[in-house]
Amino acid sequence: MTKISNNRPLFLITNDDGIKAGGIKALVEMVRPIGDVVVVAPNQSYSGMSHAITVSVPLYVKEVVNEDGLLVYKVNGTPADCIKLAVRTLLDRKPDYILSGINHGSNSSASVHYSGTLGGAREGALNGIPSIGFSLLNYSYEADFSKAMPFARHVLSYVIKNGLPEGTFLNVNFPDGDSLKGIKVCRQAKGKWVEEFIERKDPRQRRYFWLTGHFKNLEPQATDTDEYALENRYVSVVPCSIDITDNDLLVHLQKMKHEFQMQ
Amino acid sequence: MTKISNNRPLFLITNDDGIKAGGIKALVEMVRPIGDVVVVAPNQSYSGMSHAITVSVPLYVKEVVNEDGLLVYKVNGTPADCIKLAVRTLLDRKPDYILSGINHGSNSSASVHYSGTLGGAREGALNGIPSIGFSLLNYSYEADFSKAMPFARHVLSYVIKNGLPEGTFLNVNFPDGDSLKGIKVCRQAKGKWVEEFIERKDPRQRRYFWLTGHFKNLEPQATDTDEYALENRYVSVVPCSIDITDNDLLVHLQKMKHEFQMQ
Repeated sequence: MTKISNNRPLFLITNDDGIKAGGIKALVEMVRPIGDVVVVAPNQSYSGMSHAITVSVPLYVKEVVNEDGLLVYKVNGTPADCIKLAVRTLLDRKPDYILSGINHGSNSSASVHYSGTLGGAREGALNGIPSIGFSLLNYSYEADFSKAMPFARHVLSYVIKNGLPEGTFLNVNFPDGDSLKGIKVCRQAKGKWVEEFIERKDPRQRRYFWLTGHFKNLEPQATDTDEYALENRYVSVVPCSIDITDNDLLVHLQKMKHEFQMQ
Repeated sequence: MTKISNNRPLFLITNDDGIKAGGIKALVEMVRPIGDVVVVAPNQSYSGMSHAITVSVPLYVKEVVNEDGLLVYKVNGTPADCIKLAVRTLLDRKPDYILSGINHGSNSSASVHYSGTLGGAREGALNGIPSIGFSLLNYSYEADFSKAMPFARHVLSYVIKNGLPEGTFLNVNFPDGDSLKGIKVCRQAKGKWVEEFIERKDPRQRRYFWLTGHFKNLEPQATDTDEYALENRYVSVVPCSIDITDNDLLVHLQKMKHEFQMQ
């Protein structure tokens, strides 16, 4: 860890598409001019792994790059594992910012719950570090991140200047392609994945299922959601909380003390 | 699916400790007298799997019990996979309630993010089905769930009578042992896992890390949190939202339009 200085901002980067994905390279290139960079990322795709942590097998860490101001490690674990390992073990000091992504594919609306990329960002927020998850609406391994980068820089600049409140992180999604119109700060749309399971038989004639499906926006009329922003070619920024308490229902249930509580 | 009737409530049950765990048996015994029951649960422990879904390997489903009013399937997938498979493929009709657990070990405070049990409950809520995650503060495979059951029944009775608002689910934790004092509806405590990684060398002299740690309540003075309730031997009920938008930060960022947005 001798090549990481103490006088520049330290960026910790992870993703869920694996260390070789183009999206993570785009983030490294974005921040290398302004700080020191440590990448701790999965050795393969951990897509759909949410905020999972690895408890039943040991984690192996392999250093793959060691240059002035840039260290890269790969881990046989999830994005949340990578952040934990970095913060607790690999780094000599607390990172100033955590960036996760850029995910190859959307993480808007309900996808925030399934996303390993956002699991990495949430883990950063749980550690009290300003954290941002980035995703591009293009699942291709060959996706072009160049059009998204000016907007990613802008969001990051805001966070560097203003910080983020404790317990929050940002979920940033970029429409794919040219002519992005700007950035919209929005709320998480109500939506869900409408799954279908492909049903087949394996060579031993055992029936198996394979998850597939498409996303459905459950409030297509709303204009203040991330889905609306993305459909209209704006970059969506959803501020997210690590506290998932539903305060409306909390107040309601507490009022119904006589019925609900057994004290 | 012919043995599941259409005229009794249908309970769908999953967990993350696997189909053989005592906690899932406790839930089945609780609801069998009042409805039909379908269990779709992992074939092994999927602890710490959060809301992960399986996208890179196929899922196999094996029927292990087929009695009047009780069907049990095991799946090589996560709790969220189990709920998706049940709702989309295995069941002829939408379940009336989804119960997840009873987890062997606490899922209070920040643990809600790592918990496969709560991933199953959240997946239920994403499907518009009233869903409850239950956890007992005892990690043992031999944990005794009997003292928790009157309180589990009480929470379930409330939900059967009143329903739950769309997009919410309940995170219910039981202290271990006797003399529980009652139920408290509370908010998610600010807390985090203070991890340490055990560092060892494997037989081939490769360094590996194994995740361990302990939970830390970051607001020990607060009396309205799940941690406070549990420490004082109350059952904690935290109403949780699938919408994780941080509304305070949303309003703040929207006010800073000139600085943050690029339209």
